[in-house]
Amino acid sequence: MNKKVESAIKPTRTENYAEWYQEVIKAAELAEVSPVRGCMVIRPWGYGIWENIQSVLDGKFKETGHQNAYFPLFIPISFLEKEAKHVEGFAKECAVVTHHRLEVNAEGKLVPAPSAELDEPLIVRPTSETIIGEVYAKWVQSYRDLPLLINQWANVVRWEMRPRIFLRTAEFLWQEGHTVHATSEEAMEETLKMLEVYSEFSEKHLAIPVIKGEKTPKERFPGAVHTYTIEGMMQDRKALQMGTSHFLGQNFAKASDIKFQDKEGKMAHAWTTSWGVSTRLIGGVIMAHSDDDGLVLPPRIAPKHVVIIPIFRDESEKAGVIEYCDTLAAELSARYYHEGKVRVLVDKRDMRGGDKTWQHIKRGVPIRLEVGPRDMAAKSVFMGRRDKTPKDKVGVPRDEFVNTCVSILDEIQAALYQKALTERDSNMRRIDDLKEFEEFFTAKSADKPEIHGGFALCHWSDDPRLDAKLAELKVTIRCVPLSGPEESGKCLFTGKPSHRRAVFAKSY
Amino acid sequence: MNKKVESAIKPTRTENYAEWYQEVIKAAELAEVSPVRGCMVIRPWGYGIWENIQSVLDGKFKETGHQNAYFPLFIPISFLEKEAKHVEGFAKECAVVTHHRLEVNAEGKLVPAPSAELDEPLIVRPTSETIIGEVYAKWVQSYRDLPLLINQWANVVRWEMRPRIFLRTAEFLWQEGHTVHATSEEAMEETLKMLEVYSEFSEKHLAIPVIKGEKTPKERFPGAVHTYTIEGMMQDRKALQMGTSHFLGQNFAKASDIKFQDKEGKMAHAWTTSWGVSTRLIGGVIMAHSDDDGLVLPPRIAPKHVVIIPIFRDESEKAGVIEYCDTLAAELSARYYHEGKVRVLVDKRDMRGGDKTWQHIKRGVPIRLEVGPRDMAAKSVFMGRRDKTPKDKVGVPRDEFVNTCVSILDEIQAALYQKALTERDSNMRRIDDLKEFEEFFTAKSADKPEIHGGFALCHWSDDPRLDAKLAELKVTIRCVPLSGPEESGKCLFTGKPSHRRAVFAKSY
Repeated sequence: MNKKVESAIKPTRTENYAEWYQEVIKAAELAEVSPVRGCMVIRPWGYGIWENIQSVLDGKFKETGHQNAYFPLFIPISFLEKEAKHVEGFAKECAVVTHHRLEVNAEGKLVPAPSAELDEPLIVRPTSETIIGEVYAKWVQSYRDLPLLINQWANVVRWEMRPRIFLRTAEFLWQEGHTVHATSEEAMEETLKMLEVYSEFSEKHLAIPVIKGEKTPKERFPGAVHTYTIEGMMQDRKALQMGTSHFLGQNFAKASDIKFQDKEGKMAHAWTTSWGVSTRLIGGVIMAHSDDDGLVLPPRIAPKHVVIIPIFRDESEKAGVIEYCDTLAAELSARYYHEGKVRVLVDKRDMRGGDKTWQHIKRGVPIRLEVGPRDMAAKSVFMGRRDKTPKDKVGVPRDEFVNTCVSILDEIQAALYQKALTERDSNMRRIDDLKEFEEFFTAKSADKPEIHGGFALCHWSDDPRLDAKLAELKVTIRCVPLSGPEESGKCLFTGKPSHRRAVFAKSY
Repeated sequence: MNKKVESAIKPTRTENYAEWYQEVIKAAELAEVSPVRGCMVIRPWGYGIWENIQSVLDGKFKETGHQNAYFPLFIPISFLEKEAKHVEGFAKECAVVTHHRLEVNAEGKLVPAPSAELDEPLIVRPTSETIIGEVYAKWVQSYRDLPLLINQWANVVRWEMRPRIFLRTAEFLWQEGHTVHATSEEAMEETLKMLEVYSEFSEKHLAIPVIKGEKTPKERFPGAVHTYTIEGMMQDRKALQMGTSHFLGQNFAKASDIKFQDKEGKMAHAWTTSWGVSTRLIGGVIMAHSDDDGLVLPPRIAPKHVVIIPIFRDESEKAGVIEYCDTLAAELSARYYHEGKVRVLVDKRDMRGGDKTWQHIKRGVPIRLEVGPRDMAAKSVFMGRRDKTPKDKVGVPRDEFVNTCVSILDEIQAALYQKALTERDSNMRRIDDLKEFEEFFTAKSADKPEIHGGFALCHWSDDPRLDAKLAELKVTIRCVPLSGPEESGKCLFTGKPSHRRAVFAKSY
């Protein structure tokens, strides 16, 4: 009989996936619910991941010719009304600013001052197409001003009724690219180029394989002509939309009157795009890689790559061990690892070594080194890797570790990606029978009640009957993959002819 | 007779300093007034300066042991009420969120939905002491959790009745450090350490000499025990408060109930600090260094260090010149300059070379190189420096320029600092006579009606008579310099005994 191995996170993924997610976040000190409804506090370890995501993406945006700028937090209500579809999709849940002053009332309480009501209420940006469009209309005059390639790092607010940390919060952090082009072709090229930047980033840095595809008309960004997405599979086999890139055609250019004089002197409306990823990516990283002992971080975005835990019995051993650890840390920190250097922490806190080790396991640090007097004497380190089990630790000669550290990090990165890819591929299948489709999304095994289904590749049609069936199963069409072959078939739900499969999945 | 030299910016500094400031911003494409009242759009060139400021300061914060985190944009009104002095100082002008949904009314207009009124209104953070205090109260339990050293990069909103780009806008970008300590001494050490970080940054990177000092009780941050500031002198001799660091004592810890168990097991309220600088620094850079031809940028924060302008008459010359410029740019970009590399732009736009040159002068690029076929043949470049006059250009052998570029940048940086220091020191004087004081702040010469006064170092007392006189002259006490010697004297306004001089100035 196997003794059940205790795990650091309760409940486990199979017991209750949603609660496991919250517990991983808590144990890793990534973020927490704030005193303000629906908003989160991103703690230093979680923010450190975001800083790494920002730094890599920002570099890629600049390599592809973009510059950063900053636009106002507030949007006058009237701006929203300009693009009809956009207002439908975005005007619903948002934070509305109606006053610009507080005053103390008769009961001694602070209240919005009635005399300071705004003539026109402002909303806190849920996304910035409308305000940026207004500004671009002034900046763009001639073909010489194009393309205009700008990105903004910002906070946005979408009032959420069922907030969930990183995945869906009232306020979140993101970047939004907004570009203007002289031709439809150039705008489409930009849209797909940025989708490719996102996809490569997701696979290479977050170690999450994604499917690039186009959203169906119902799932388009309000006001877009085409919306492209990258979709990743989480460990509960649900899909996570990880980034989107929108070809806006001339819709927003017409709404905001972005016009330019072409080389022949004729005036024409421009073509625009927008694209964004958010702190939701951190939620994706958690759900794609973590295990029942807590967070597992791909090295390329980990705030620390290596933690060194000095182990000593008493003060007499302390100084020597600390010095050995500091010297080791200095040597490791001098090594290059992709965009930067190896990030090392020597954990000198006044705590039991075992408690520290578990804390760093739960925080997902890729490599842990425990170093005590015996390791010092043997000129070695005792290494644990986060992609192996907690007890799977090995002694390694110190200099060998220094020389191989970077390749071990690459090995961990590759292993995480490979694991996620295998998991995704083994839970993705073509389905051509409605009954099989229903079973795929409903059959649950007793030992994994929360984990079932996956990605179903099926023929489809844009028809209300399909929507009804999907709503019943709580399944959505995630996208029509760009790499999917042309293939004649029949819609699984209506029998209508179809020439391409879409990805169906439950989702976040 | 001298022919009057035409300048690129109208009006000039002496003609109308305030308008000159706006025109420099416009000509350099740094920022602009947005369609949302009081908010600004920071354009790529202005945001590039902010990115450089962020990157250097962020490095310094991390070197001094701080980590970044992120706290909610919104603060419930009730949080403000906790610290009595704080509410007095901050509750006045702010953006108040009262609804969380819009709906279409009977006339077809979007309006805040009456059914979606918030139970408790939220304000958009004007500063985050209260919300962060609430969170810290949970994080801090034991002396082991201290010190807690956290910084946040964020946007904040303070409704401004008289906005002025970069100096005073409803929304601005800043960083706010919030730290918690076990003892008063440690909190004070932190407060002064961060003041030192700001002062060093201002002098070394922004090339603006500053006076470090303490604010008088009336000018303190609402709720602080001591507020320290760095004050720089602008070219119109007014003072600009460039950064502040607050020792908050136990005031906010008591208001938010931040308590910890000390080594002996006793519970005690913690000691906190906060410190911040904002996009206002960009305003300081503009006003400290720019001239009547536009922006002048200290190289260490310039988005580009060198711009190369290819000059050719026709297509037959173009390819060769461009190639020469690109090769030169690649060599320069490989050179290290302080925190990074030399930042080079080859301006290939389809525009007249002379127009480009003037644009880059107005944008404050430290070094301009004009390169045409003759320079190519002579293996040289034609160099203009922004710290010299526009026509002061010299031919330099190409390889010599590559080898000396970094030291030329350092030379420009040092020259800007020296110029600002000389200007400041020649307009700062001890004044011990009230009549002289009045004259100092009122005498205006006919040729420079806007530029007068400076920093007056005077004995003072905390007395209403002094306030009345200062209000009349539109002068404020900027700070009591930390480096000022103990010196017995009499208050200039009341005759009361004084043992230290304060800096008096007009200000922004």
